[in-house]
Amino acid sequence: MDDLNVYLNGEILPESQAHIAVSDIGFLHGGSVFTTLAAFGGRPFRLDRHLKRLLDTASLLGLQTDTDADALAAAVDGVLAANKLVRARLRITLSGGDLRTGRPTTLVTAAPLPEYPPQWYADGVTVVIGSFKQWQGDPTYGYKTGCYFPRILARQEAQRKGAAEALWFTTDNRLAEGCFTNVFLVKDGKLLTPARDTPVLPGVTRAAVLEAAKGLAIDCDDEAELLIDDLLGADEVFITASTMGVVPVTGIEAHQVGDGAVGPVTAKLMSAYWELVENETAGA
Amino acid sequence: MDDLNVYLNGEILPESQAHIAVSDIGFLHGGSVFTTLAAFGGRPFRLDRHLKRLLDTASLLGLQTDTDADALAAAVDGVLAANKLVRARLRITLSGGDLRTGRPTTLVTAAPLPEYPPQWYADGVTVVIGSFKQWQGDPTYGYKTGCYFPRILARQEAQRKGAAEALWFTTDNRLAEGCFTNVFLVKDGKLLTPARDTPVLPGVTRAAVLEAAKGLAIDCDDEAELLIDDLLGADEVFITASTMGVVPVTGIEAHQVGDGAVGPVTAKLMSAYWELVENETAGA
Repeated sequence: MDDLNVYLNGEILPESQAHIAVSDIGFLHGGSVFTTLAAFGGRPFRLDRHLKRLLDTASLLGLQTDTDADALAAAVDGVLAANKLVRARLRITLSGGDLRTGRPTTLVTAAPLPEYPPQWYADGVTVVIGSFKQWQGDPTYGYKTGCYFPRILARQEAQRKGAAEALWFTTDNRLAEGCFTNVFLVKDGKLLTPARDTPVLPGVTRAAVLEAAKGLAIDCDDEAELLIDDLLGADEVFITASTMGVVPVTGIEAHQVGDGAVGPVTAKLMSAYWELVENETAGA
Repeated sequence: MDDLNVYLNGEILPESQAHIAVSDIGFLHGGSVFTTLAAFGGRPFRLDRHLKRLLDTASLLGLQTDTDADALAAAVDGVLAANKLVRARLRITLSGGDLRTGRPTTLVTAAPLPEYPPQWYADGVTVVIGSFKQWQGDPTYGYKTGCYFPRILARQEAQRKGAAEALWFTTDNRLAEGCFTNVFLVKDGKLLTPARDTPVLPGVTRAAVLEAAKGLAIDCDDEAELLIDDLLGADEVFITASTMGVVPVTGIEAHQVGDGAVGPVTAKLMSAYWELVENETAGA
């Protein structure tokens, strides 16, 4: 079992020796926020945006922290160096901390970047429709918090059906996002993704894909109201996440998306996204 | 700072030395279930019911555990004895465990029973209406899970307004429960509490109050569909929880419940509940 080094409250130490208090509000109540990102060539992609969203989320949800963007950036560099990782998946977690001592918890972990199956990118994946919906009034919805148990359950359900992801609708039946991904549709050459106030997580990869689309002069609506008919009527569908990039979706349950192959707009955006990553990290 | 003894994965040790792994799914994603109960005279009240609900919940949500009711009952006794506690608040937490080692986490903590302000019982408390609702399709709703961050936020909001609790409605506007309590109304002498499938937590204190009401021949509907008008039109309102028992509610935001004093049915049930506790623990 690997024992990678982690950053915990100012120290870098082996994971096996890094501990959370039993009275940490992150453990007791899910009182935490986090972000997940990828590093290539030893450089995290768009770390500044991840840190801004993470710290903004903590502030919005009233979570006390004792760190800042500079300290977190140094922690990320420290963890990458300590593990000699070049291609990495990083997770930064800020919890309200130990209720006994009042000390907030800051954790940065790194691991080798997961190798997703090459056929995901060549042939696309199948997704399912989540069997429950998201109530958009939940104050933690639209943020990455320690309350991801429903998402874990939904992803497990997807995996039991042989699918890669579950897509979620809101309680008023608007397409929102995947459990761990953002979702995009292509219809008649136009790129569509649910409005931020659905609410969906303002993903860093989501933003990078929108930027790449602009560079390619692809017509785009990032405030789209998308219902189930839009999803099933789309010519192309793809999902995005920091560690996996752009992944084509060619099946939704038993429904075939378009002609069942990776579509031309998706293919262009996959390349353009990796080009962005390559340019900014020199190592994609 | 007190350093109470806790039970963690088979061992009893001081809280300061009891640690959760940084890769515990309870910490990372709120992937845990818990229950909170009270002990009087060194005896936990209705421990068997708490354990049954806890283990049933873990099983329903697909959480792997490596403990059972007998081991947990022994752990509870061990923690009470190690801390020489007679009146105690206990919390039992089962998390899916350390993703690195695959080992589930079992934690039992105990602390002196909180002393609630005597005027809560003499004069009643004020509650607020939670500013967001509960989507009844959420698979974790109706259970005590590690995803309680929204409840923490709602209780903080209540406390900022000088209230003791926030009451929650479902997204289809039915009264459900408080953040950490069950809720009861009295109308024309009849006791009413939301149906289990609202869904609300099937609280052990809720069940004990229904049992006490039966003993007092109070007419009762524990499958009531209650809307905001029922709440505001009630003659009496009270909330229940294992550690606080029956607490009268005499104000809802700016609205006065009944004549603003603790009502006769509530008063009878407060006594009858403590009598039940006294009989079963010989120490209320």
